[in-house]
Amino acid sequence: MDKLILEINKRLNSILDDYPDSTVKDAMLYSLNAGGKRIRPVMMLQVIRSYQQDYHPYIDVACALEMIHTYSLIHDDLPGMDNDDLRRGRPTCHRQYDEATAILAGDGLLNEAVNIIIRAHLEDKMTIDLISCLYRSSGIDGMIYGQELDIQNENSSIDTDTLQKIHKYKTGKLLSCALMMGAIIAQRDDIEIWEEIGYKIGLAFQIQDDILDVTGTTEQLGKPAGSDESNHKTTYVHLLGIEKSQQLADQLFNEAVELLYSLKINHGLLLEIIENIRKRVS
Amino acid sequence: MDKLILEINKRLNSILDDYPDSTVKDAMLYSLNAGGKRIRPVMMLQVIRSYQQDYHPYIDVACALEMIHTYSLIHDDLPGMDNDDLRRGRPTCHRQYDEATAILAGDGLLNEAVNIIIRAHLEDKMTIDLISCLYRSSGIDGMIYGQELDIQNENSSIDTDTLQKIHKYKTGKLLSCALMMGAIIAQRDDIEIWEEIGYKIGLAFQIQDDILDVTGTTEQLGKPAGSDESNHKTTYVHLLGIEKSQQLADQLFNEAVELLYSLKINHGLLLEIIENIRKRVS
Repeated sequence: MDKLILEINKRLNSILDDYPDSTVKDAMLYSLNAGGKRIRPVMMLQVIRSYQQDYHPYIDVACALEMIHTYSLIHDDLPGMDNDDLRRGRPTCHRQYDEATAILAGDGLLNEAVNIIIRAHLEDKMTIDLISCLYRSSGIDGMIYGQELDIQNENSSIDTDTLQKIHKYKTGKLLSCALMMGAIIAQRDDIEIWEEIGYKIGLAFQIQDDILDVTGTTEQLGKPAGSDESNHKTTYVHLLGIEKSQQLADQLFNEAVELLYSLKINHGLLLEIIENIRKRVS
Repeated sequence: MDKLILEINKRLNSILDDYPDSTVKDAMLYSLNAGGKRIRPVMMLQVIRSYQQDYHPYIDVACALEMIHTYSLIHDDLPGMDNDDLRRGRPTCHRQYDEATAILAGDGLLNEAVNIIIRAHLEDKMTIDLISCLYRSSGIDGMIYGQELDIQNENSSIDTDTLQKIHKYKTGKLLSCALMMGAIIAQRDDIEIWEEIGYKIGLAFQIQDDILDVTGTTEQLGKPAGSDESNHKTTYVHLLGIEKSQQLADQLFNEAVELLYSLKINHGLLLEIIENIRKRVS
């Protein structure tokens, strides 16, 4: 998996190298190189490998997926949204550059992801299916809707169903998309099972986030610990307590693993990712 | 042309109707319905018609183009960018809603434009060519680069060449794209000539904007007259004076018309647009 991450990182940088120099490009690279775990592109490539297929022709598509994720973080951090100064221990894009540059860098990543997929020169139908999967997942019936729900429900007390809905859209949609894109490339009919696996991992991931915000240190997290409290965000820890939240996360990871075993694939490649997420401390 | 505008307006609203209700969707519709002149989508459809082809199957593509234009206006107006309160006489998106909603509405339009083109169910290769043309024109080597240059050069005195470069990217790229998309749909090899026509109209359009900012009234413009002066923007009027600016705009319009006559098309349909732009007072 480390080899995949290296390949993704290298390619992300060389893709951007091909564009003319600009401050917006620098800001895009700054945020792309801010130490992200590359969970989504790695998931996509591992799905391809789990079907015993060569992932190399699809690294650019994986990079496009990471670009969409990174754009969402840049815009989410903006003063008009969550107004965060730190991400992964470094200044957020608008703190490192300025607000205008951060807005444009987010726009640039969202805009160029589709160009990168087109320039990968895959078969026309696959190109369209991949773009459609990615931009439906990230759109106003996907991740953007999740961002809206998240912001609308700040400062208000919400129930578990609403919290689950927020996370399904805000995190689940793009994680599911990563897995589905792998299945689209492998040309397998398992799309719906992958989608379900993605939602479960996404929700477990968010519950972990809520737990880590209480149990982790600022150094581990790369952002202020306890920020959910100070941002008046309802979390799973508020609603269920730490212990029950942990149980729910475990249950969701287990259900994801169970679904994984229902597929005729090399399971180990995906189990490794799930175990890595399960054990994360940041 | 009025019939085309009505068709575009009707379809823009019904396209958005198909999405689940959300505040971001409302904000997208608010800005889409803010009285835009629909220059780009009308241009695209008129190019198709000028080749004696039926434009009806491509109205959704024209709508996608207008969505990209509208997203750029919403983000351009944000407090972190130009910080404008009024556009076309109505509150800008972030003034009518809030900053977070406006950021997400812009993201939503940029994101969904590609989904709309895919859902038009055109031939695969044409779908990809149209998406590529649109997102290259709007990207970090296109319109976004123009926005960056524009912001970087605020408060500094620049020469005509730099001003021309800003406008080529900020306005010219997407206007050229509108014409090129028409030629892609008509499957004609005139793409480069259309690109050149677009740049000339775009530059003339911007010079007009600079002139109108000085000669127009706040009521006519739908935004405060004289705002370039108060925003410390270098304009053609600063560099050349009103009279020479008008001469340059006229020259560019004439050159665009000349290029138009080099094409084997029904020229009248495009001449009508150019004349409308030439005579505009807002």
